Amino acid sequence: MNNEILRGYSQLYKESLLNNVVPFWEKYSPDQTYGGYYTCLDRTGKVYDTDKFVWLQGRQAWMFALLYQNVEPREEWLEISRIGIDFLKKYGSDQNGHFYFSLTREGRPLVQPYNIFSDCFAAMAFGKYGLVTGDTESTDRAVQIFSQILKRRANPKGKYNKVFPKTRDLKNFALPMILSNLCLELEPLLDSKLVEETIDNCIHEVMGDFLDDKTFLIYENRTLDNGFSDSFEGRLLNPGHAIEAMWFIMDIAKRRDDEELLERAVKVMLAQLEYGWDSEYGGIFYFLDVNGNPPQQLEWDQKLWWVHLETLIALAKGYQFTRNPRCWEWFEKVHSYTWEKFYDPTEGEWFGYLNRRGEVLLDLKGGKWKGCFHVPRALYQVWKTFDLCEDESN
Amino acid sequence: MNNEILRGYSQLYKESLLNNVVPFWEKYSPDQTYGGYYTCLDRTGKVYDTDKFVWLQGRQAWMFALLYQNVEPREEWLEISRIGIDFLKKYGSDQNGHFYFSLTREGRPLVQPYNIFSDCFAAMAFGKYGLVTGDTESTDRAVQIFSQILKRRANPKGKYNKVFPKTRDLKNFALPMILSNLCLELEPLLDSKLVEETIDNCIHEVMGDFLDDKTFLIYENRTLDNGFSDSFEGRLLNPGHAIEAMWFIMDIAKRRDDEELLERAVKVMLAQLEYGWDSEYGGIFYFLDVNGNPPQQLEWDQKLWWVHLETLIALAKGYQFTRNPRCWEWFEKVHSYTWEKFYDPTEGEWFGYLNRRGEVLLDLKGGKWKGCFHVPRALYQVWKTFDLCEDESN
Repeated sequence: MNNEILRGYSQLYKESLLNNVVPFWEKYSPDQTYGGYYTCLDRTGKVYDTDKFVWLQGRQAWMFALLYQNVEPREEWLEISRIGIDFLKKYGSDQNGHFYFSLTREGRPLVQPYNIFSDCFAAMAFGKYGLVTGDTESTDRAVQIFSQILKRRANPKGKYNKVFPKTRDLKNFALPMILSNLCLELEPLLDSKLVEETIDNCIHEVMGDFLDDKTFLIYENRTLDNGFSDSFEGRLLNPGHAIEAMWFIMDIAKRRDDEELLERAVKVMLAQLEYGWDSEYGGIFYFLDVNGNPPQQLEWDQKLWWVHLETLIALAKGYQFTRNPRCWEWFEKVHSYTWEKFYDPTEGEWFGYLNRRGEVLLDLKGGKWKGCFHVPRALYQVWKTFDLCEDESN
Repeated sequence: MNNEILRGYSQLYKESLLNNVVPFWEKYSPDQTYGGYYTCLDRTGKVYDTDKFVWLQGRQAWMFALLYQNVEPREEWLEISRIGIDFLKKYGSDQNGHFYFSLTREGRPLVQPYNIFSDCFAAMAFGKYGLVTGDTESTDRAVQIFSQILKRRANPKGKYNKVFPKTRDLKNFALPMILSNLCLELEPLLDSKLVEETIDNCIHEVMGDFLDDKTFLIYENRTLDNGFSDSFEGRLLNPGHAIEAMWFIMDIAKRRDDEELLERAVKVMLAQLEYGWDSEYGGIFYFLDVNGNPPQQLEWDQKLWWVHLETLIALAKGYQFTRNPRCWEWFEKVHSYTWEKFYDPTEGEWFGYLNRRGEVLLDLKGGKWKGCFHVPRALYQVWKTFDLCEDESN
């Protein structure tokens, strides 16, 4: 692609990040009274629910620390990060240091620490904030949480796990996937041997255990000996999840200078995308059953913001790293779909949930799962990726 | 309504039950090798998954015992009921007598007894089968499960409950609702004082604690002092749930000869229906937020078979008991929508899941939640209700 086109995209993503998306969250999200962030924001930014979801508290604190570090050291950005960090320090975890799933506006626990991704995003936030500010309480917390996550790997839900043991033990893709990213995020704070070991494990799991070598599809759940389980869980595909994981793996491959891994990640990413694309209405399905059976998830055919935004990152990186023309073709196709359908030209920020036809299903800008994360992270990543593309091709 | 029209509907529901729906389950559902029933059946009846879900095992065993008892004493129907009962006896529960949520085809436990409705539908099945056959092991089991359910009422999920105590304790509508029906189902087996007490409690909860007196809307979750909780859970409405509960209450009112309660149940039922009806595309929404905020449930705008079938029962009974012309108008409207959209004229039985527009979303005939229950029960109930209407008006 010529530099002018790359520059055009790069500018678009940068401007949208800085002039549209970040201001939306700066304006509507911080809770100046109790700390932390509101994330349940309607189409116009109005708060419709004040509960605080720990995933989203961590993710937003991380996002604003990243903006401060990598975009511009604006004090107001660091301050927004800080109010999330302080809220998490004060109210986020129980006496074992495990993070609750949700809290009231004031910080009282609502839902028990059954979900290890609360811990993952808290660690991500503490790590970035600590590195940016030098706050050692935060960096220490990040390291300690990371180590606890590794310990809880085998049964992340703990006593809340409802699976009867030994009948059909399955392992799930989400944690190795998130660790692929978290490990690089926290690398400056971790022992280098632990980093390499964790990366080795992640590559092994993400690109081996969960990947079917014949179809290049990634399964959400596998048997303990890495086989196929002919069950609802075992047949489940989540193309967006798999695609997101592939850009984590591309980052790892780049860091390790591993060309073969890089090519493989791009190949796997494209396989999910081609499989998951809705040829009738456009967009990427949320869930599919690999045998074409009806999935359990009633929302299976919906089009979700994060799936499409993560795909844009993966395609941009795939293109930057390999110059594979299929990455470029797909990037333009997914870009057109995504900006046309998800971007809200009148009220700012992006819609999160569309029906199969690509019509808005819920007009929220934030909720229990959508916060200040996938949209700004993708805008940032695509902007920076195409900037690098340009540099490299000069 | 004149008798000819009532007779026409009555015939239609009866014939569809006996010539279409029951034969479908007779043919495709029994597992002659391991016992119990397959419920994951595709559009044509082919088994696409062999897991056995305890809700649906109990519900089908109950259904076939009811057919044997109330329609015709066909040995093959009792035999189908028996294979579900035997399967539940052998494999259904843990050492505490609590019922698992799901089992493998062979009966090995898959998901722990976190869901008390497994117990409710097991009790319903054992009760009916025992009463029909005189099998005292079954009737004893029914009584014992019922008593355990009452003991577990305050925290039905037990250790799997993820709600942090005391921050925002809510009570949920589903158990009192199901008990309204289960209690009458098991009445011949229970101590009459317990029956009356349970009924009193149910009326108090269903028609009081969960009901908003101003709007006549029923809430899925209320605070412990019966107030409104301004939270995702607290704002949640499930019109189908509320409507189904109203025909349970009508049955109770009829049994107690309580005209006032009957009128009130009809009024509440119509209020949910008018509130939950999708004026744009027809059909009843699955979930709504009482303040018009985006619900958490991504499937909120879908049209589900059970919602519409339970509504037909409630309207038929409402009409039979009160001759309220709004019941009749609504019955014809919901009947038209339901038969046009859910009934599968080519392969038999009914679709379960439509999108907002009323197009088939998943073409399964059975799955994890849809089994041999709501369709045949509704066909049976509407048939019998309009039969009675005729008799009464003669």
